[in-house]
Amino acid sequence: MKGYVFHGPGQSAWEDVPDPAIKEPTDAVVRVDAVTICGTDLHILKGDVPEVRPGTVLGHEAVGEIVEAGSDVRTVRPGDRVLVSCITSCGRCRFCREGMYGQCRGGGGWILGHLIDGTQAEYVRVPHADLSVHALPGAVESRDAVLLADIFPTSYEVGVLNGRVRPGDTVAVVGAGPIGLAAIATARLFSPERIVAVDLAASRLEAARRLGADAVADAGEAPEQLIADLTDGLGADVVIEAVGVPESFELCTRMVRPGGHVANIGVHGRPATLHLEDLWIKNVTITTGLVDTRSTPTLLRMTAAGRLPTAELVTHTFPLEHMEEAYDVFSRAADTGALKVVLGAPSHDDLAVPAA
Amino acid sequence: MKGYVFHGPGQSAWEDVPDPAIKEPTDAVVRVDAVTICGTDLHILKGDVPEVRPGTVLGHEAVGEIVEAGSDVRTVRPGDRVLVSCITSCGRCRFCREGMYGQCRGGGGWILGHLIDGTQAEYVRVPHADLSVHALPGAVESRDAVLLADIFPTSYEVGVLNGRVRPGDTVAVVGAGPIGLAAIATARLFSPERIVAVDLAASRLEAARRLGADAVADAGEAPEQLIADLTDGLGADVVIEAVGVPESFELCTRMVRPGGHVANIGVHGRPATLHLEDLWIKNVTITTGLVDTRSTPTLLRMTAAGRLPTAELVTHTFPLEHMEEAYDVFSRAADTGALKVVLGAPSHDDLAVPAA
Repeated sequence: MKGYVFHGPGQSAWEDVPDPAIKEPTDAVVRVDAVTICGTDLHILKGDVPEVRPGTVLGHEAVGEIVEAGSDVRTVRPGDRVLVSCITSCGRCRFCREGMYGQCRGGGGWILGHLIDGTQAEYVRVPHADLSVHALPGAVESRDAVLLADIFPTSYEVGVLNGRVRPGDTVAVVGAGPIGLAAIATARLFSPERIVAVDLAASRLEAARRLGADAVADAGEAPEQLIADLTDGLGADVVIEAVGVPESFELCTRMVRPGGHVANIGVHGRPATLHLEDLWIKNVTITTGLVDTRSTPTLLRMTAAGRLPTAELVTHTFPLEHMEEAYDVFSRAADTGALKVVLGAPSHDDLAVPAA
Repeated sequence: MKGYVFHGPGQSAWEDVPDPAIKEPTDAVVRVDAVTICGTDLHILKGDVPEVRPGTVLGHEAVGEIVEAGSDVRTVRPGDRVLVSCITSCGRCRFCREGMYGQCRGGGGWILGHLIDGTQAEYVRVPHADLSVHALPGAVESRDAVLLADIFPTSYEVGVLNGRVRPGDTVAVVGAGPIGLAAIATARLFSPERIVAVDLAASRLEAARRLGADAVADAGEAPEQLIADLTDGLGADVVIEAVGVPESFELCTRMVRPGGHVANIGVHGRPATLHLEDLWIKNVTITTGLVDTRSTPTLLRMTAAGRLPTAELVTHTFPLEHMEEAYDVFSRAADTGALKVVLGAPSHDDLAVPAA
């Protein structure tokens, strides 16, 4: 089959790779019908995630059909249409038992396209299939569902829930790429007073307005001043970091009010400076985290009910075999206006979505 | 009267200052019967807290007797024996209404010995007296009570409560000075599995054992390895920073487990490096904060019941006028073995403590 293989920083190709097969009785093999590219994949290509070994097939988000299931798989079977979550979980370790699947110690966690071959391929082996795929309601289209493999639960859990957005809050979202936009969309579920999006790109700030931002600020023009003006000089109740560079994180710590929360979602490759000489006295809570995907079933129900603006985020679609072109378009988002790019075989999609 | 005056970094003296007087009808003037020196005072003397103006009387912890109360003071009157809390609060602003008194925007917060003259003097003016002093039960001795002006509520609220210590936890306390020791004593209230104290000084590690640490580690000898060995390689559930230097904070972030908490209590004068390239994926929560003293009434009841080891922390006592000697002993703690030094007029104490 074909897969998109990482060969070291800056090197990758859509090329022939071995077909995946069941290795453990808890595995399933999924035919990939829709897949997307994540900002994290770009971080991997830059060398920010050094544990990814050359030779690994990238990708940790997919919708597809189970084509083979190991003998211990109980909840799905060949022919089932499923969401392949970015997080796989053993279900048995201490962290899985606490619902912290992202930190699974039993061979799960974020492993697809990271520690084992991922979803940017024609087929993918998914370990711990019972707890790592979600059967899809027929009403949910693949191109919507694939956004629930990572970005929606990530933005919701690591940004909105960790940041403890509450009714009446001022929420600042730094970075209006797909993750920041999904954070804006899911922050709205808690009825904040206002959401302020911060980015360098005017096109992304426009998208932020479409997704529900009440105000926008150019990241290069002292956005902390706008936040201060809006909040009687106090700062935002919740600041969500959705970029992944030190400058952005440090901006977040300047925009938060005393007693507020900074929720980091960004994938960072370098340390940041934490200005404890200012922050020690400010009652600030800073959280980091990998998504657990605990919220995925809820978000799937909301998607089926048309309550999440997934379609707003998909700007480009490609056939699966146009992976290299899709990467090019996604990585030059400032020029192409790309938010999420979705790849997949339309014929599979047509087959997979039954009549309503 | 006499007071201990800050004259700029490295310069201070016990000298004549004007007697304090009522300025606002909500003020009280308190005769200082017992006072202590805080690590924060040493930070001020080093220049770490630049908003303290030369000419300010230092000190934010005292026990004494109300000698004059403004016309609007309702809950205490001259002759009452009170604890002067390090936090004064207006009771009316947004933050006070949320119980976050340390962030008071109505003229309170940490102002004594910081923005206005403090308690290291014969008398002190206390603004917002109704909400800023606590009437003392007769059973509580002044030298015990004075430790509840700052260090016990600080260690408990900013360390133990912010860190969310729970039964069964492994808790690491970095820094076994008075704040760290009070954190150890109050962490025990939540029945952790073990408390590990980390410090460079053997004498402080001994004190940590007396206050309830189950294990101790020399800060210079890779204490993160001991924590890893004790926790199956995971790290501590809660790590409490009680030093206030970047190296110590960074050590804390290396010792915490995925999903764990780092609660910073230390007063910092310099930024730290936050290794987001490691932490972004670890579900870590970092908190900073100034004490609110919400817990002070509870801690006073526990002290009256003999449930807090306040006496264990007082290593030196001096008459009030020996302030400079007390500062010398406290600032050379590595040589003198000083934990908390308490200054005060014994005759006042004798008068103030009624027969049981």
